[in-house]
Amino acid sequence: MLMSELIAKKRDGGTLSDGEIAFMIDGYTKGEIPDYQMSAMLMAMYFRGLDHDETVALTMSMMNSGDLVDLSGINGVKADKHSTGGVGDKTSLVLCPMVAAQGVKMAKMSGRGLGHTGGTIDKLESFPGFSCALSKERFFENVNRVGFAIASQTADIDPADKKLYALRDVTGTVAVRGLIVSSIMSKKLAAGADIIVLDVKTGSGGFMKTLDDARALAREMVDVGTAAGRRTAAVISDMDEPLGHAVGNALEVREAIDTLRGEHAGNLLELCLTIGSEILVAGGAAKDADEARARLQRSIDDGSALEKLAEFVEAQGGDKRAVYDTSLLPEAPVQYEAISECEGYVQRMDAEGVGLVSLHLGGGRATKESVIDLSVGLVLKKKTGDFVKTGESLATIHAADMESARQAADLLRKCYVIGADKPESNPFIKEIIRAE
Amino acid sequence: MLMSELIAKKRDGGTLSDGEIAFMIDGYTKGEIPDYQMSAMLMAMYFRGLDHDETVALTMSMMNSGDLVDLSGINGVKADKHSTGGVGDKTSLVLCPMVAAQGVKMAKMSGRGLGHTGGTIDKLESFPGFSCALSKERFFENVNRVGFAIASQTADIDPADKKLYALRDVTGTVAVRGLIVSSIMSKKLAAGADIIVLDVKTGSGGFMKTLDDARALAREMVDVGTAAGRRTAAVISDMDEPLGHAVGNALEVREAIDTLRGEHAGNLLELCLTIGSEILVAGGAAKDADEARARLQRSIDDGSALEKLAEFVEAQGGDKRAVYDTSLLPEAPVQYEAISECEGYVQRMDAEGVGLVSLHLGGGRATKESVIDLSVGLVLKKKTGDFVKTGESLATIHAADMESARQAADLLRKCYVIGADKPESNPFIKEIIRAE
Repeated sequence: MLMSELIAKKRDGGTLSDGEIAFMIDGYTKGEIPDYQMSAMLMAMYFRGLDHDETVALTMSMMNSGDLVDLSGINGVKADKHSTGGVGDKTSLVLCPMVAAQGVKMAKMSGRGLGHTGGTIDKLESFPGFSCALSKERFFENVNRVGFAIASQTADIDPADKKLYALRDVTGTVAVRGLIVSSIMSKKLAAGADIIVLDVKTGSGGFMKTLDDARALAREMVDVGTAAGRRTAAVISDMDEPLGHAVGNALEVREAIDTLRGEHAGNLLELCLTIGSEILVAGGAAKDADEARARLQRSIDDGSALEKLAEFVEAQGGDKRAVYDTSLLPEAPVQYEAISECEGYVQRMDAEGVGLVSLHLGGGRATKESVIDLSVGLVLKKKTGDFVKTGESLATIHAADMESARQAADLLRKCYVIGADKPESNPFIKEIIRAE
Repeated sequence: MLMSELIAKKRDGGTLSDGEIAFMIDGYTKGEIPDYQMSAMLMAMYFRGLDHDETVALTMSMMNSGDLVDLSGINGVKADKHSTGGVGDKTSLVLCPMVAAQGVKMAKMSGRGLGHTGGTIDKLESFPGFSCALSKERFFENVNRVGFAIASQTADIDPADKKLYALRDVTGTVAVRGLIVSSIMSKKLAAGADIIVLDVKTGSGGFMKTLDDARALAREMVDVGTAAGRRTAAVISDMDEPLGHAVGNALEVREAIDTLRGEHAGNLLELCLTIGSEILVAGGAAKDADEARARLQRSIDDGSALEKLAEFVEAQGGDKRAVYDTSLLPEAPVQYEAISECEGYVQRMDAEGVGLVSLHLGGGRATKESVIDLSVGLVLKKKTGDFVKTGESLATIHAADMESARQAADLLRKCYVIGADKPESNPFIKEIIRAE
């Protein structure tokens, strides 16, 4: 088998067999197939696409390129979730305690990543002393005892994805559905959970800008997970504006805690109830979505989810007092109100732009080497559909100094489109995709 | 400017500017742009194509990647020709002496190349002592004195093409018209001639299998050459069967000499008269094609072209007596008749297959390291449209031993399709493409 022949086959619209894909991924991971042949293949895939069987084969080959996590040391069914990412996305911080409080275990691997704010691991480091660098034994023990744990992903999982992603990033071949699906699903499958729920964001601030694209991506991920024998579902939700109100690491932790205290009942909670219901039903902890939602809501009402978060923080070395007293979380020296210069309804928001304000304040990573300031960010006071008067605050900026706070306020104002008519409201949960 | 942005632009159907193409080729030649980005670009070009302006810019950038040959040391106009290659193609050996005998100088650079037989340089080495390794001074002096010279292409010409060609070869991106045109034309433009005539072969044994593809390639090459300020034309001819009768290095030299002696009047001579007329008219040595053809024919009738060949061979260190006594050329020990096993008209021939018989006999290079046997090959006795009886010879095989001769005869028989009806004859010269 020659890689040049496989390139020509895909270029000409052919379908690669399981064996051909395994040969390609194995050879590429070992360095026997050079980057320049793989990048030509990736561009041919950009134009020709990958069908379901090819996507499954690619996912399985990538999964098998490195270590597979064996979660059998953890009792009962194990769930995992993956988000395609968005601005203000603190879903895991709320979801995991709620689900664990209802008896379904979550064994989650997370990354740090580049972006407007840090990844879940960065956010959690707002708790003094907290660490995601857990040994395998400690990870298993924590999941068994607490009900969930979040560990940083090891280098030995899915090396093919690391090589392929780096190559796609510099060769214009990121936006290929089969490649996105296999990149996400190969890692999730290697991480070993029985239940996988995918949190797919759509809209201007989401990974998939249109609902059609989001639906197609979700469908393919669910089909691949199902083909691999895992209970897989996807929830498609709106990311035309940031999720919740806080954007910034410690600020998002605070909002997550407030949500677990029952002090918020907006889109963030709705998303956690929806994803959590899928997990509880798939895990056999509830007979249907109604029962699951009621149980998840109860874990907030009775404080058990908040207690689960505190147990989790303590089990990973953090100061659990901060769960009950959020003044112990990092706090920025400057709080500054971003004042509206006009009056009317918020017609729409530039979610990406809001994320860039957080990045500007120092809350995210522009490059791998960037140091994150966990305390900075912003808390939105007005979102789409809200009425705002001239001089009223759009958001509170949390900044390291007045200079950056003022600049951030200027940038933030540009993220709002304000007009006379109240905009039509847009459903937040778009669709739930399950195995067919 | 970032290469990843240029890849995305081409991928999305955009048009690369002159500056972008220059940046890309300059960076790639210097090794600043890696192979893996260039191969993604090449595959995007495969799907999106290159327009005329992009092809011109690419050609000029590649031309400028290395040394430009300055032919101003040679008096008068200088012509060059390039063939897209085919089986039994000994055109240069006949054409150059004819044109030079009529007063238009030909300063030709040639390669060895891979293929069924050697390149023009290999063929010429059939003359004992002959060499194409000429200094620049010697090359100029020979063209001035003899009227033509053939030198091997130096490594310093068009390094971008060498790198790009090697990459295209292993990434499924050879068959892109704009890339083919720029590869051929950048080398020809760098070689410095005022007049460039392109010998484009079409049909089963040609580089372009269909006349439409050959016409599009020829049109683009002529347009690029014209845009670069050179008098450029292309002659499209048939390569559904080998050109002439001999296939193999010394055998082709013999056929070329016989043609210059006026002993052949077939397609080979017709092609040389057609290409030669384009050159003579473009060079101002004849007022129209009719006059040019008459003069070229005269140079055969009066022996001046044959004499020119002898002068040329001597000027490049070869034994010119072989021009007048071809028994001095290498001769294979075994001559073996490939006998037809059936009767009828030759319906069609597999030109590529005939070439592979020559390769099998040792007359060509399968890899760069192969050593060529100049003496072997075959001389066809029957071609398309001829009637053949059972037991009659299809061709004489010239081989190193009986074993390979018998195998070659078996292979050769499979290249003939013989049937009851006389096939329709097919015009040999398909089209002449000139500047618009």
